[in-house]
Amino acid sequence: MQLVLQSFRLLIADLCQQFGMGHPGSAIGMAAIGVALWKYSMRYAPHQPDWFNRDRFVLSNGHACLFQYANLYLVGYKAMTWEQLLSYHSDRADSLCPGHPEIEHEGIELTTGPLGQGIANAVGLAMATRHLAATFNRPGYEVVSNHTWCMIGDACMQEGVGCEAFSYAGHLKLGNLTVIYDNNQITCDGSVDLTNTEEVNKKMEACGWEVLDVEDGVNNVEAIVAALEKGRDPKREKPLFINIRTIIGVGSAVAGKAVAHGVPLGTDNVVEMKKAYGWDTEKKFHIPDTVKEFYSGLPAQGERHVKEWNDLLANYSKEHPDLSKTFKDRMAGKLPESWHSMIPSSFPSEATPSRKSNNLAMAKILAEVPTFMVGTADLTPSVNLTYKGYEIFNPPDLKPASGAQGSYNGRYIHYGIREHVMAAIANGLAAYSPRTIIPITSSFFMFYLYAAPAVRMGALQKLKVIHVATHDSIGAGEDGPTHQPIELAALYRAMPNMEYLRPGDGEEVAGAWRAAVEYQGGPSMISVSRHAIPQLRGLTRRDGVLKGAYVIREEKDAEITVIAVGAELSFGVNVVEELARRGVKARAVSFPSHKLFREQPLEYQRQVLRRNEGMPAVVIEPYVSLGWERYADAGVNMKGYGHSLPGKYIYQHFGYTTESMAERMVAFLKDWKDGKIGRGEFVEL
Amino acid sequence: MQLVLQSFRLLIADLCQQFGMGHPGSAIGMAAIGVALWKYSMRYAPHQPDWFNRDRFVLSNGHACLFQYANLYLVGYKAMTWEQLLSYHSDRADSLCPGHPEIEHEGIELTTGPLGQGIANAVGLAMATRHLAATFNRPGYEVVSNHTWCMIGDACMQEGVGCEAFSYAGHLKLGNLTVIYDNNQITCDGSVDLTNTEEVNKKMEACGWEVLDVEDGVNNVEAIVAALEKGRDPKREKPLFINIRTIIGVGSAVAGKAVAHGVPLGTDNVVEMKKAYGWDTEKKFHIPDTVKEFYSGLPAQGERHVKEWNDLLANYSKEHPDLSKTFKDRMAGKLPESWHSMIPSSFPSEATPSRKSNNLAMAKILAEVPTFMVGTADLTPSVNLTYKGYEIFNPPDLKPASGAQGSYNGRYIHYGIREHVMAAIANGLAAYSPRTIIPITSSFFMFYLYAAPAVRMGALQKLKVIHVATHDSIGAGEDGPTHQPIELAALYRAMPNMEYLRPGDGEEVAGAWRAAVEYQGGPSMISVSRHAIPQLRGLTRRDGVLKGAYVIREEKDAEITVIAVGAELSFGVNVVEELARRGVKARAVSFPSHKLFREQPLEYQRQVLRRNEGMPAVVIEPYVSLGWERYADAGVNMKGYGHSLPGKYIYQHFGYTTESMAERMVAFLKDWKDGKIGRGEFVEL
Repeated sequence: MQLVLQSFRLLIADLCQQFGMGHPGSAIGMAAIGVALWKYSMRYAPHQPDWFNRDRFVLSNGHACLFQYANLYLVGYKAMTWEQLLSYHSDRADSLCPGHPEIEHEGIELTTGPLGQGIANAVGLAMATRHLAATFNRPGYEVVSNHTWCMIGDACMQEGVGCEAFSYAGHLKLGNLTVIYDNNQITCDGSVDLTNTEEVNKKMEACGWEVLDVEDGVNNVEAIVAALEKGRDPKREKPLFINIRTIIGVGSAVAGKAVAHGVPLGTDNVVEMKKAYGWDTEKKFHIPDTVKEFYSGLPAQGERHVKEWNDLLANYSKEHPDLSKTFKDRMAGKLPESWHSMIPSSFPSEATPSRKSNNLAMAKILAEVPTFMVGTADLTPSVNLTYKGYEIFNPPDLKPASGAQGSYNGRYIHYGIREHVMAAIANGLAAYSPRTIIPITSSFFMFYLYAAPAVRMGALQKLKVIHVATHDSIGAGEDGPTHQPIELAALYRAMPNMEYLRPGDGEEVAGAWRAAVEYQGGPSMISVSRHAIPQLRGLTRRDGVLKGAYVIREEKDAEITVIAVGAELSFGVNVVEELARRGVKARAVSFPSHKLFREQPLEYQRQVLRRNEGMPAVVIEPYVSLGWERYADAGVNMKGYGHSLPGKYIYQHFGYTTESMAERMVAFLKDWKDGKIGRGEFVEL
Repeated sequence: MQLVLQSFRLLIADLCQQFGMGHPGSAIGMAAIGVALWKYSMRYAPHQPDWFNRDRFVLSNGHACLFQYANLYLVGYKAMTWEQLLSYHSDRADSLCPGHPEIEHEGIELTTGPLGQGIANAVGLAMATRHLAATFNRPGYEVVSNHTWCMIGDACMQEGVGCEAFSYAGHLKLGNLTVIYDNNQITCDGSVDLTNTEEVNKKMEACGWEVLDVEDGVNNVEAIVAALEKGRDPKREKPLFINIRTIIGVGSAVAGKAVAHGVPLGTDNVVEMKKAYGWDTEKKFHIPDTVKEFYSGLPAQGERHVKEWNDLLANYSKEHPDLSKTFKDRMAGKLPESWHSMIPSSFPSEATPSRKSNNLAMAKILAEVPTFMVGTADLTPSVNLTYKGYEIFNPPDLKPASGAQGSYNGRYIHYGIREHVMAAIANGLAAYSPRTIIPITSSFFMFYLYAAPAVRMGALQKLKVIHVATHDSIGAGEDGPTHQPIELAALYRAMPNMEYLRPGDGEEVAGAWRAAVEYQGGPSMISVSRHAIPQLRGLTRRDGVLKGAYVIREEKDAEITVIAVGAELSFGVNVVEELARRGVKARAVSFPSHKLFREQPLEYQRQVLRRNEGMPAVVIEPYVSLGWERYADAGVNMKGYGHSLPGKYIYQHFGYTTESMAERMVAFLKDWKDGKIGRGEFVEL
């Protein structure tokens, strides 16, 4: 065993030395944990990395990625060739060994790096298992039975998103989740007690976790295996936290020091390590044959796991033919064809908050298509995403003081007031298997700033998550500037792969949901109003939403284009009418999505905006203008934060009345015609 | 006492009923806590709300703002007139009673609303007291001795930023901080046990807090006062957490129910409440004379507090004349005139990472001007903000395994891996008293997404905080797309009051710091590189930075303007030279700050960009283009996320070579001249 551990540590040291970059220390310290996981405890199949019932492993301390890459190599993942392993921090753009693990590569469940996220992702994965098991398992047929393992470091213990995840996972009694704490008591700045002196085990117990200690995590593989086996116990009723003492960079001259974290150990140090181990100091990247042999049986073991599961599935299909058909559809990520037709073909004509239109558009689908799991960060009464007969995802033995008995069958998730972990858990739910579960999150738009780091991670990983952001306008009113998201859209419009949609009425809400459900390139965000907005029947079109922007009122001889969006779409129509009364011919464009519009052919874009005819476009949106300069020449936008005023007063306060806007547009148009506006200059009206 | 409590509860109920809006429940449930705080325990001065040594009170559950407004009225704050109190949720834009407490109004220490922030703000306030006390108090002269009180609800307990704050405050042993937990076990979605079943007291103890319980928080004012008095004990060595059981909306028909949280109780319910209390059901907004009398002595008490402190200060000035002079300067927010001259007049000519230029520019100032408190979220080796003789802010009895003995005198703050709470604590440090402490935070730019909700709160409140964001470019390299902030600048450029600065070499770093230190309108963010960047001597000018953008290479007959920024500023210069070799006359503009440029006169903007001469501008920045469309006609920008490649390869990978950029610009210029680019169309090169 010592040879195995030494071999692993030296491999890591050499890999960092090769290009003089990388994070050696924690991977070296975690050598024995790696053996325990990949050799003894985890169930996986190197030949079939996406085997549905595989154990999921998340490296929340993603900088220790070599820990995972080296183990994937050793146990026989095919893509992780020797040549690939050596490409860590090389000039190879196609390296499977980037600086942090990336979901695109086999054996990696989720991209990690931003600390704490992985814990939440693992909670999502474990929730997915619990939910699919409750839905599809039958006595004697545990077709979904994988365990989730999450490796964390000292940093993950400190991040807020990790704290939220611990609290919520304990509440959910996720006995199928084991967190392995690489407790080396070192962070970049020095020893952990410089910044954190909490009693970790006691805190975890208070959060509803069972806690185990492993005193010698450096060498005692057996003790680690014993702890991990307790984690896998199917009768476990609480998630397990294994507190394993390790030494960062163990065996090297910088063992136990912060400097071992993020820089290579140094040539001399590596030579000294080899000497101390009695190794040939000249040899680099050496893996002795006995070590290779040690790992050699794992591919075959993986094949046995898959075969056993395939056999189980075959019998399950005979015994439960309908259920197994549904299960296979879910595994394949198939939505029933019928979902399209469940979106109503029209909406009531009275003014309706678009958050309510959301419900009108989707409630039937949410109720009947079990792929969707809807969650909210404690805003059930506000976000309007409940549906007929919705069941709460909670531990079966939980009967809260309010609300129904819990069930892992449930598809409605009360995340608590934890926006960040909600979005990070949704990433885990989505990553369990593509489109087997489509998570929907919800909160006020403003609080998607709390969730933003996780939303970004979903976008980076192209994970199919739908975020429902309500109260998306100053029209939300009296809650004031802390709740009025006047600059946040800039972030989500700038975020690659993110489909940010602001529908303007029920018809556009229908289009937004179609766009979101069909989009396969990442997360979507449907951004809707708290307050009632007019239904623009005959003007709005759901298929227009799919193009990002479209003309809702054309005027051949127009002098100006008025762009309007979302909760304020009707303002654009009103202003066009007011301009007509003032003798100005104007046309109106609805613009729910920058991203979708940018993806249209140039010709379509020109038809919609007609700026190349010399006609200016003016946008109305009570967000800051940033980003609109691409599509408009002027804007009625916010110049600063909002204000606490009830909805009926706030638009007036900021000049969003039809008269005021029309007046400013007339003045702008005069300046435009008089040549007072320089080329390319955007005017804040 | 019952009359006082009844009167308070009915006042809240009536205030919400008035316009049919508001959050009545928690304020009603907290009536007794309010009496304990404002009548018995807090030291404050209604006639002088900004008295330096006042106790600080933060309402982290900001939606319960009526709790604070009503108490401010009752105890005699002058601005909070009866008329003002009645303006809650009215159409008055000048209301002092917005939907969440706002810093602009007297008696309010910080704006709250986004949950959990207030806890962190309170930690910052308590840290400020500890630091100023350690710096200025002398035996017999406790000139800084205020206590910090923070009121929280169930939601604040769940938010990650709150969890980070609890952990860090326990570590810091902030015995001058008391958190009062309005434990009503209700959130919007129902009972807390729907989402959170952790053992709160045990968790807080694990985090290093002392915990007290008050079983009857509804009526037992004495028990609350007794607990609060323990909080104030100057010998206390741990922060105090008082877990007070209350009943949301107590006395009404919806007592203990979620519906009491965010909607008025209803006319009938209020009548029933009044009946049950034996009050005249016809009377609204009634405060009996005995209740008025109960509070009547508080203004005079406040005057005595201030007088005592003024006397103390007078004697202190005699006994410690120099120290007291410094103290008075600090209280007045004065920086020594000399700080300007401490910024070097020039920088070494070799290529330097701009994070190192930061240190060259500021280390002397940080060492010699004690107004600055520098902190980092565990990236001391990376952010380069240490200075000669820097002392760590930590409890005096703490001697970590690594690092020096702690001291509250210290001005270097190790926040741990807690970016969000770092920024939120910085807001508290800044809010203690204007410019008495100027907090500097630091992390990788990407992780200012974790911190963003708190950074935004600082901008909303115009708090003077300087954020130092390093590794701000894809040039950060091998850490990969999780660490490469290609879209985040859009958020900070969109954020009102935020001065986001990307300096391009040492000279511009000097300008950025001058801009940041002098800026009085909110926070700044200085965004710098990990990697070495050329020093553009003779081209860059620190005073140019103050204008946001300026010409670094003019060319009268230019055909194109090349805009470049920050870590890639030299790319612009190189491209201009390459264009010249290709026969294209070009000019170069450095553009460190959108905000500062936007604030310049139009004439200056036109001189810099010269777009109104028909000359196009092209921007080089490896961020997404969003926001640049205002200043440029085309851009060499990122179209998606970054990639894990060492710095020397990544620019090439994404086409940021001089040749490639010049080639694309030449092609663009041809299209431009050929009229192929429609008016107002931004081209991604």
